[in-house]
Amino acid sequence: MGPVKLIEYKDANAQVRAVYDDIMATRKTDRVNNFWKALANDPVTLRRTWESVKQIMAPGALDPLTKELIYVAVSVTNQCRYCMTTHTASATNKGMTDAMFHEMMAIVGLANQNNRLAEGYQVEIDDCFKEQS
Amino acid sequence: MGPVKLIEYKDANAQVRAVYDDIMATRKTDRVNNFWKALANDPVTLRRTWESVKQIMAPGALDPLTKELIYVAVSVTNQCRYCMTTHTASATNKGMTDAMFHEMMAIVGLANQNNRLAEGYQVEIDDCFKEQS
Amino acid sequence: MGPVKLIEYKDANAQVRAVYDDIMATRKTDRVNNFWKALANDPVTLRRTWESVKQIMAPGALDPLTKELIYVAVSVTNQCRYCMTTHTASATNKGMTDAMFHEMMAIVGLANQNNRLAEGYQVEIDDCFKEQS
Amino acid sequence: MGPVKLIEYKDANAQVRAVYDDIMATRKTDRVNNFWKALANDPVTLRRTWESVKQIMAPGALDPLTKELIYVAVSVTNQCRYCMTTHTASATNKGMTDAMFHEMMAIVGLANQNNRLAEGYQVEIDDCFKEQS
Amino acid sequence: MGPVKLIEYKDANAQVRAVYDDIMATRKTDRVNNFWKALANDPVTLRRTWESVKQIMAPGALDPLTKELIYVAVSVTNQCRYCMTTHTASATNKGMTDAMFHEMMAIVGLANQNNRLAEGYQVEIDDCFKEQS
Amino acid sequence: MGPVKLIEYKDANAQVRAVYDDIMATRKTDRVNNFWKALANDPVTLRRTWESVKQIMAPGALDPLTKELIYVAVSVTNQCRYCMTTHTASATNKGMTDAMFHEMMAIVGLANQNNRLAEGYQVEIDDCFKEQS
Repeated sequence: MGPVKLIEYKDANAQVRAVYDDIMATRKTDRVNNFWKALANDPVTLRRTWESVKQIMAPGALDPLTKELIYVAVSVTNQCRYCMTTHTASATNKGMTDAMFHEMMAIVGLANQNNRLAEGYQVEIDDCFKEQS
Repeated sequence: MGPVKLIEYKDANAQVRAVYDDIMATRKTDRVNNFWKALANDPVTLRRTWESVKQIMAPGALDPLTKELIYVAVSVTNQCRYCMTTHTASATNKGMTDAMFHEMMAIVGLANQNNRLAEGYQVEIDDCFKEQS
Repeated sequence: MGPVKLIEYKDANAQVRAVYDDIMATRKTDRVNNFWKALANDPVTLRRTWESVKQIMAPGALDPLTKELIYVAVSVTNQCRYCMTTHTASATNKGMTDAMFHEMMAIVGLANQNNRLAEGYQVEIDDCFKEQS
Repeated sequence: MGPVKLIEYKDANAQVRAVYDDIMATRKTDRVNNFWKALANDPVTLRRTWESVKQIMAPGALDPLTKELIYVAVSVTNQCRYCMTTHTASATNKGMTDAMFHEMMAIVGLANQNNRLAEGYQVEIDDCFKEQS
Repeated sequence: MGPVKLIEYKDANAQVRAVYDDIMATRKTDRVNNFWKALANDPVTLRRTWESVKQIMAPGALDPLTKELIYVAVSVTNQCRYCMTTHTASATNKGMTDAMFHEMMAIVGLANQNNRLAEGYQVEIDDCFKEQS
Repeated sequence: MGPVKLIEYKDANAQVRAVYDDIMATRKTDRVNNFWKALANDPVTLRRTWESVKQIMAPGALDPLTKELIYVAVSVTNQCRYCMTTHTASATNKGMTDAMFHEMMAIVGLANQNNRLAEGYQVEIDDCFKEQS
């Protein structure tokens, strides 16, 4: 009923170990976060979630730091302490300064406020923004 | 009870016009979004909100495009169609490509998923992330 | 799959009519809102929900206008357009002025912002607020 | 990565102390809540947020207790424990009784329920509520 | 300001004891969860909430286990740790296996992701789904 | 800025067509929902999301109807009209009766209410639910 058991590498089956190995190789680290050790209770979800993270958070049109900032901003909006903590750490590893963190937080607060002002006043979308993108 | 009346420039008092003028000057445009025309029903909130936006969204440690991407990501998470539409337009004006938009959306979806997985499995924060920042 | 059918008085069974009659008598009106006509598709939920509304929104330690303001504030936070529209109408009927509406909206925006700042900065509760109430 | 460091008065710079002094003078107290000590890591956000709170929560068309009740209702909806705790304390200082607290909580629960019933049944807004306010 | 006092059976008045007795009789147990002991501070809300739970969670067109799974899924989405913990226990008592729990969690994550993709891309409802149900 | 363009089969590239073909084959239908036509603007996300849906929503320890009910319950909680509409249709195809739909809705409303009551009263988890699962 409480937190699920964390599956350590030594107790993991081959399927789980393969994911752990890929996480450590991809991230160039020798540890695996508790998030993955919890998901390992469901190896299918562990693999699917890791493959999604690996694909989505890889460098692309957006650089890795910008991606982490977006991830943290969503996690703060949803108030998920685990995710904001671990991804703030990732963002820091990728070069986020204190000033960047504070600016990101200010935007999260502002957008959460303005989302409600726009909805509460039922503001209609400006004609010039109505064309299909 | 429905949407509030939008206050056009010609119908605005001096206090509201001063804000509209500052919006247009700051953004180098000759139009004011409906959001501001709705807030103008409460000139104190109009001024406070505009001053906050002007301060927070100005270039800083984060560049203006990154700031817009974070703003859109929060608005999509909260499902505020007005804000996601207008700030997607702003992001596009600041150089967001289609590829960037799609990557931002993928991260928003992923974080919304993983926030629930982390909370639902009640994952405890890793010891190495517990030090005070 | 879309909106449920609204059950009009003339098409309602005795169980539903009894609730409609009580709504109209309690509210001193000759019409029933669409919310109730939608819930009437499930007469048990119609009755339970109406009994809850009647009990909770009745005058008590808080006056009816304050109750409506709280109801609207939650509905704006959750961005439920139906509830914010109908309860803004109720609040207006109970004496809400435009100035009151604008102040309520400003608080909703502020709290939505500060909730994220408090969570994102992981502010610990002050010792002086930790005693049991 | 974890909670930010709280900036105490003795360690604060002049800019931060000026805000702390204003908080204590406005609230007629000799202490500053942890929320402000956390925001002090970003003095610009500290000042902006305090100025917003001072403006919005001051007596106006709505009395200070009603304002606190609305603030708490939003914070409970968003499940922000820090904000609900500190603003419940503020509400109590401004005259909130236990009975008022319980009634506010009942409304928050009810609105959160009915928001989903209205959305899930996709209830259309009644014609009589569609006129512009 | 902090958690409310829990009202134990021996300290409860007759009105509260009657609800506790009904909870224990209905659930065939000799204990009452903390949720009810907290609500007992407001006996009217205690009774109303218990009557709602008893009515809604009883076997009906949906079996009790399916009902608990839906309840947990909502609580995980809202990130309410108390409710997800206690209703996961209830679901387990009603036959939920680990495999069922993991599948429910995967759906919760998926829907939270896809809700944002659908909203963020502003997908219009397919014509074939627009008929009234 | 508004809704993205829907990619029809005849305009789709080979990568997108392969996913559309798999959707139609898996679901034994000759049409593809707008959700997929919107995601097709980002073929990588289209494929990843479809593979996740196919894996998660397939029959397993939970039957397909129960899975759809959980999906709808989350979508109603998040107030995503597109997802609740299309997955209500899927649930109906898999045998959901009106009575089941109403019971699911009642649980969603109840859990959304009780989540806030549990959080607002800051109910502590009962000792008996604290053991690790």
